[in-house]
Amino acid sequence: MEEREEKENGIMGEEQVPEEKSEAILASTVTENSDKETQANGVDVHAEVEEKEKEKEKEKRMEEGEMKKKVESEVKVEMCRSVQDFQLSFIRGSDLFGYVGIEAVLDQMRHKTMKAGFEFNIMVVGQSGLGKSTMVNTLFKSKVSRKSCTPNSEEKISQTVKLQSVSHMIEEKGVKMKLTVIDTPGFGDQINNENCWEPIIKYINEQYEKYLREELHVNRKRRIPDTRVHCCIYFLAATGHRLRSIDVEFMKRLGKIVSIVPVIAKADTLTIEERQGFKERIRQDLAGHGIRVYPQKEYDEDPEERFLNDRIRESIPFAVVGTDMEHQVNGNKVLGRKTKWGIIEVENVAHCEFANLRDLLIRSHLQDLKDVTHNIHYETYRVRRLNESNVNFIERGLSTWPLENGTADKCESDSHL
Amino acid sequence: MEEREEKENGIMGEEQVPEEKSEAILASTVTENSDKETQANGVDVHAEVEEKEKEKEKEKRMEEGEMKKKVESEVKVEMCRSVQDFQLSFIRGSDLFGYVGIEAVLDQMRHKTMKAGFEFNIMVVGQSGLGKSTMVNTLFKSKVSRKSCTPNSEEKISQTVKLQSVSHMIEEKGVKMKLTVIDTPGFGDQINNENCWEPIIKYINEQYEKYLREELHVNRKRRIPDTRVHCCIYFLAATGHRLRSIDVEFMKRLGKIVSIVPVIAKADTLTIEERQGFKERIRQDLAGHGIRVYPQKEYDEDPEERFLNDRIRESIPFAVVGTDMEHQVNGNKVLGRKTKWGIIEVENVAHCEFANLRDLLIRSHLQDLKDVTHNIHYETYRVRRLNESNVNFIERGLSTWPLENGTADKCESDSHL
Repeated sequence: MEEREEKENGIMGEEQVPEEKSEAILASTVTENSDKETQANGVDVHAEVEEKEKEKEKEKRMEEGEMKKKVESEVKVEMCRSVQDFQLSFIRGSDLFGYVGIEAVLDQMRHKTMKAGFEFNIMVVGQSGLGKSTMVNTLFKSKVSRKSCTPNSEEKISQTVKLQSVSHMIEEKGVKMKLTVIDTPGFGDQINNENCWEPIIKYINEQYEKYLREELHVNRKRRIPDTRVHCCIYFLAATGHRLRSIDVEFMKRLGKIVSIVPVIAKADTLTIEERQGFKERIRQDLAGHGIRVYPQKEYDEDPEERFLNDRIRESIPFAVVGTDMEHQVNGNKVLGRKTKWGIIEVENVAHCEFANLRDLLIRSHLQDLKDVTHNIHYETYRVRRLNESNVNFIERGLSTWPLENGTADKCESDSHL
Repeated sequence: MEEREEKENGIMGEEQVPEEKSEAILASTVTENSDKETQANGVDVHAEVEEKEKEKEKEKRMEEGEMKKKVESEVKVEMCRSVQDFQLSFIRGSDLFGYVGIEAVLDQMRHKTMKAGFEFNIMVVGQSGLGKSTMVNTLFKSKVSRKSCTPNSEEKISQTVKLQSVSHMIEEKGVKMKLTVIDTPGFGDQINNENCWEPIIKYINEQYEKYLREELHVNRKRRIPDTRVHCCIYFLAATGHRLRSIDVEFMKRLGKIVSIVPVIAKADTLTIEERQGFKERIRQDLAGHGIRVYPQKEYDEDPEERFLNDRIRESIPFAVVGTDMEHQVNGNKVLGRKTKWGIIEVENVAHCEFANLRDLLIRSHLQDLKDVTHNIHYETYRVRRLNESNVNFIERGLSTWPLENGTADKCESDSHL
């Protein structure tokens, strides 16, 4: 070390006074700490959503071309909006006198996520025989779903809807996911299907309740186990007609508490024209009944997201085919269903929309499904529960602060021990 | 589309039944939903920490070589532990019949973080003249700190410790960070410095309180503004002696509520031997007084982290030199301080430990500083406040559940509107 120091001392550097970087950007938010407590203005989630809805309605009326232009110019503005403070001075990379390394935080987060793994809980609903288990197995390329309960003559079809969950750890490229598949055998299989959604609503709310209680615990877990349903795939029979009453009643109710992704099951029974017509009629029915399915317009966070999600909204419900059989096509192994008239390649977007469904659920929106569950559905549940219980923790629960002889002193006396 | 379908139908694929993937891995956790509510066993943060502490003490006594071996073999086991369930079947990438795309979640998180930006709040404490502002400016390669208040003859030195915070948005490679620097002018500058840490303790706790109240709000913000101090850099004068009483008293108290990173300021006044000796004596003093500085052993999450953090713990406090002047050395511009006897290159690890400090604060541990603040310091504050207020939200606040005529029905009647 000494040697190196000496060597470099030998070479006399030339002093350089750095050019003054524009002083304007240094005008910043300086705050002196005062005892006045800043009023926390709790923003109502619903009011916020309503506000956004209005804004979007207005924009919808604009011309498509004009809107796209607006989208592009708006992206930057809205993206800044997420950092609460508008009056901050902005120092960009080019303003810095050298590399800081802020973006290293992304790798740090990546590393932490890979170490900790994450949870993803998916529910499948639809009458028996629509290939729910096969579809989940196809999505996750493994037998993650319960064995299909093809009833033999001795077994009776369950008289009620019973929920079953199966969990697996799936690891791919070092990323660990705890996948839980919640199946709902018996749904829609009865003569009288009145209220068959109730056990499902109950299950979903139970998971919110569990999470809420964990969150309110005084000594709580560092990471609250997440059993909340992040996504509910609703299987529509490929009738080619319209939504049935049971579909409407189920999705109307469930759309308010969970992210629903409707799919047309066993879509290989539909011709190209039938498929297009059926999808169009379903979209009309969904809109007509005010049914909310994922991704919901109201929850798009910025124009970029809105633009991408609009493409998805235009093509739901995805018409899918599932299988776990491999076939040889042009020398390649493909997942497909072989018939006398050809092979339906499940992952071929020209054949069916399975790939679109997988992209939505896993490759592009998985984190968003988790975020929407946490930020919207869970939060809505929490607000309802707290209002119901008539609890205002701050007014009724928490002692006043600052405690002149309390907290701060307590902390000191602790350290005297 | 028709054309393509026909073309592919023409080539008859060869059917292949996929080999049965080992059935053993499919034995999974199947749970039938029952009404019994799972008992949430709240794990005490402190009990957990104590447990870990004991474990680590034991391991410390082991031989260095043996330990390293153990570290390597243990990594896998502990990394699985973070996913709460041990009995899960594990499906690895090689078991899957194709690519699923789970790891796309990392890019989704990256994208979301880049869009939303993040907050980082850093506090600097130490008597005036130790170069606190210059150090922060050097760390973030811009004038983010307040103008140094070199007192002129007309200005008087403040008689009390006043906290000042300055916020900037820094953007580098598309990642936006809201950096807040909290300065503590007046600390240690009085004749009688008794209790000069009190305004600082008060400020730190106020931020926890603010966050807690936001978290408890019924209608809470989707993203709670984070003003909590993620890191407190404590500047030690390069006396070459030992810790002074004020250093001990400050760090003893503050180490319990915030992550402290002690640094030896203006280390260019120390020879190589003096620096080594001073650092060693400070480490002894820290240990002797039971002072907790970051990164704390108790919070290492796994052996991998412990191994890396041990290297850091062995070399704190970092002896640093700050500057915002550039000089020419070997034709390159370097940040440095030019003296008659040579140029001290601030970012040259052979000259001083500034680079180590920057790596710790920004490039390797920034996210961890945020996590420790949230998971340990804030959580400890929360537990103390709730116990103090004698609040048990679940027993006293929340109405019982399941409400047979409550929540579930409420949800339904909502949808009838």
